[in-house]
Amino acid sequence: MDQSIRFYSEGLGMELLDLHSIEETGGEVAALKSKDSPQLLELNWYPHSQSEYRTGSELDHLAFETDDVKAAFERLVKLGARPARDIEVRAKYIVGFVKDPDGIWIELYAPRTV
Amino acid sequence: MDQSIRFYSEGLGMELLDLHSIEETGGEVAALKSKDSPQLLELNWYPHSQSEYRTGSELDHLAFETDDVKAAFERLVKLGARPARDIEVRAKYIVGFVKDPDGIWIELYAPRTV
Repeated sequence: MDQSIRFYSEGLGMELLDLHSIEETGGEVAALKSKDSPQLLELNWYPHSQSEYRTGSELDHLAFETDDVKAAFERLVKLGARPARDIEVRAKYIVGFVKDPDGIWIELYAPRTV
Repeated sequence: MDQSIRFYSEGLGMELLDLHSIEETGGEVAALKSKDSPQLLELNWYPHSQSEYRTGSELDHLAFETDDVKAAFERLVKLGARPARDIEVRAKYIVGFVKDPDGIWIELYAPRTV
């Protein structure tokens, strides 16, 4: 993780916005951003590799923020997406996954407003 | 390609900025952008599939614009990147590829100024 963060920050000029541990997995997640872009690059490290991560999944998915995860999920399925993971309501956000017409994993998320 | 463009534009609100054919391969390339982001999503279609494209490479690489491709290439190799493709000087731009410390393909490019 340290080497990858250095690669994207020192090497490519991105700014490290966040680095924290994930209690559930014992892993770490980092968020980096290029100066003139609002887009985040998220790096994830899992200490116990899981069978679903393998060569070819290093660059894993694209995430889109949306006002309404369920509506976006249904709209995308009508446009050729395959449902990939059920919508989950978590403490701070709602999240769902589809695969685009070519199999690319797409995350749909919405922050939860109190 | 049509279905994928509809997916990202109608489904995810991205704007189609460009769609054109590539004479060399007979393929097509599309560029899409989210309204509030300068980041481009590039979709590529190759009519004759090549062995290097396979399951797991749908989401293929990240591209970074840089002032000096050669300097960035060398800086990244020192930070743990592996050289992946020699730097090429093309008509309109200079381009090179490295793999980041985890094997993610990184494109470095610079527009050529006349």
